[in-house]
Amino acid sequence: MKKFEIAVIPGDGIGKEVVPAALTVLNTAAEVHGGIRFDFTEFPWSCDYYLKHGQMMPDDGLQILQGFDAIFLGAVGNPRLVPDHISLWGLLIKIRREFEQVINIRPAKCFKGLCSPLVNPNDFDLIVVRENSEGEYSEVGGRIHRGEDELAIQNAVFTRKGTERAMRYAFELAQKRRGHVTSATKSNGIFHSMPFWDEVFNEVKQDYPDVATASIHIDALAAFFVTRPQMFDVIVASNLFGDILTDLGGAIMGSIGIAPAANINLNGKYPSMFEPVHGSAPDIYGKGIANPIGQIWTAKMMLDHFGEEELGNKILKVIEEVTEAGVKTPDMGGSASTREVTGEICRRLKA
Amino acid sequence: MKKFEIAVIPGDGIGKEVVPAALTVLNTAAEVHGGIRFDFTEFPWSCDYYLKHGQMMPDDGLQILQGFDAIFLGAVGNPRLVPDHISLWGLLIKIRREFEQVINIRPAKCFKGLCSPLVNPNDFDLIVVRENSEGEYSEVGGRIHRGEDELAIQNAVFTRKGTERAMRYAFELAQKRRGHVTSATKSNGIFHSMPFWDEVFNEVKQDYPDVATASIHIDALAAFFVTRPQMFDVIVASNLFGDILTDLGGAIMGSIGIAPAANINLNGKYPSMFEPVHGSAPDIYGKGIANPIGQIWTAKMMLDHFGEEELGNKILKVIEEVTEAGVKTPDMGGSASTREVTGEICRRLKA
Ligand SMILES: CC(C)[C@H](C(=O)O)[C@@H](O)C(=O)O
Ligand SMILES: CC(C)[C@H](C(=O)O)[C@@H](O)C(=O)O
Repeated sequence: MKKFEIAVIPGDGIGKEVVPAALTVLNTAAEVHGGIRFDFTEFPWSCDYYLKHGQMMPDDGLQILQGFDAIFLGAVGNPRLVPDHISLWGLLIKIRREFEQVINIRPAKCFKGLCSPLVNPNDFDLIVVRENSEGEYSEVGGRIHRGEDELAIQNAVFTRKGTERAMRYAFELAQKRRGHVTSATKSNGIFHSMPFWDEVFNEVKQDYPDVATASIHIDALAAFFVTRPQMFDVIVASNLFGDILTDLGGAIMGSIGIAPAANINLNGKYPSMFEPVHGSAPDIYGKGIANPIGQIWTAKMMLDHFGEEELGNKILKVIEEVTEAGVKTPDMGGSASTREVTGEICRRLKA
Repeated sequence: MKKFEIAVIPGDGIGKEVVPAALTVLNTAAEVHGGIRFDFTEFPWSCDYYLKHGQMMPDDGLQILQGFDAIFLGAVGNPRLVPDHISLWGLLIKIRREFEQVINIRPAKCFKGLCSPLVNPNDFDLIVVRENSEGEYSEVGGRIHRGEDELAIQNAVFTRKGTERAMRYAFELAQKRRGHVTSATKSNGIFHSMPFWDEVFNEVKQDYPDVATASIHIDALAAFFVTRPQMFDVIVASNLFGDILTDLGGAIMGSIGIAPAANINLNGKYPSMFEPVHGSAPDIYGKGIANPIGQIWTAKMMLDHFGEEELGNKILKVIEEVTEAGVKTPDMGGSASTREVTGEICRRLKA
């Protein structure tokens, strides 16, 4: 019996609804498999926790998490309670950084029953490899002056190591897929960082002569997600561009409530973290209608990471079946509850 | 007879095809109107010019342009000839900056015959007010070290003056429209500049109690452009976010070949510049199939700027008619040429 120790952080808002749903599916999957077991340890770190303790997680939070095989996270943030940059940099982004989860992988694909807003979604099947450790997300910078003279400076930092690492990951992934990498750039408008990004891309691609490439400005690229998503295989993007493209990926699938993600630690020193693309959606929290699929598909990515691809693929297949059968939450045009979708997925997993 | 002196810069690629098309329409419109006349002076500043002269425009280029009532520009950039950041910062962005064209207005709306890729485009009608003078587009920053230690730093600079100016413009525009402003933010991920952006927005909105507001993170906002574009009236966005959203605006209209734009100088010291959202599209240049509508709709925005709204609206109405009649270039699913679309627009203007 293989055992996986998982730290569970439901976080805020609908995180508290979809994480339990996904744990039910994981337990069902373990049962069906027979040879694996999950040990879940839950941590209440969230904006509510902040209001009580003045911090998003305890001082030794990272030490506590370090011993686990993986972190399974829902969503963080509730701007009515805590300013977003405080809550996110105190938990989600902190874990990504400190645990060197340098790559964020986010697939988007078209499957039956999805209800894409596109007339012709054309069977797209893409993966965004998002640089997850630096770039536009940085604490470097600050403010000066007050009143009408005030100004804020935000530094984006692109290192060759960080940039190259994300690109190589993308190329290696493309080699296992359809052999195409698109680089998301903006070297016509962003003067220092993006020309550097292009240079590194042009160098790295020499090492992968079997992979075809394209470099597309982020503005045009975002438009192509809507008009021609089938043109993409693997896309490598900076932290911010990856963030934007993956919400778009969710949108063209029909709902960002479906989109999964994995924050990958590559050096084996720390656990990886699995959290869907969507946020905490405080507006629908408590209604029992949050879409659990993003979190469940994210659980599948965690299984893949553990080497349990077969089980992971089974879960994805069942998600597709349930969606095709029309058991969908309101965001996907259905009328099922979180519980109903989850129940149906577990029922079919067992069948 | 009112006379307008216009500096014309076709630029690169399809700019050289769609600008002449739009000038024909402007001349036809003047004829129909009877009381106005345009004097066009053309400048060949472009990547080809750069290859001959080592710069995108002559040293006294800005001085030459300064005397005109407006600048009418096609598209700039041809990365096979000149690196994008050189060509753009040497012409397009240089003019925007030096002539204090601090606001970039970019409408997107749904009209008949448009062939939106969305199943349900739902009559959206929105305008993005893009901050056009600072933000993520900046020459502040640089590189250090070589080889594997190399790193690039890109500074985004947000001043209160620049930020507030764009926001006030958006609020005043919303007062003349449906009374709603959405702020594009990313204060959960971008640590210094976007929380500052939010603070300024929350202050400025107090002065416009008649305007309703929302603040939405750019990732979710981009997704809403696809799933619910009808929710927006006026959107105020930073330079980069505005860039991305307006290409998306083009995409949901059916083609970025339609999307128009105006770079507005507010202090009256320098001319404003009118250029469509799309780029120079070197891949289709020379085939005679470039969509002239973006450039022609941009000409309409120039007429509005001159106070000739009636004539401007007439042009837009005719564009809609021609599109509805199916006289469309291939990017919109039609088979007409640049010349045919232009001819049809002129014919109907005269009728
Ligand atoms: C060509 C490029 C520099 C420009 C920009 O990013 O501003 C273009 O994309 C635009 O939107 O006008
Ligand atoms: C919540 C926010 C900081 C986060 C991000 O921008 O990385 C989210 O949008 C995501 O995509 O995981």
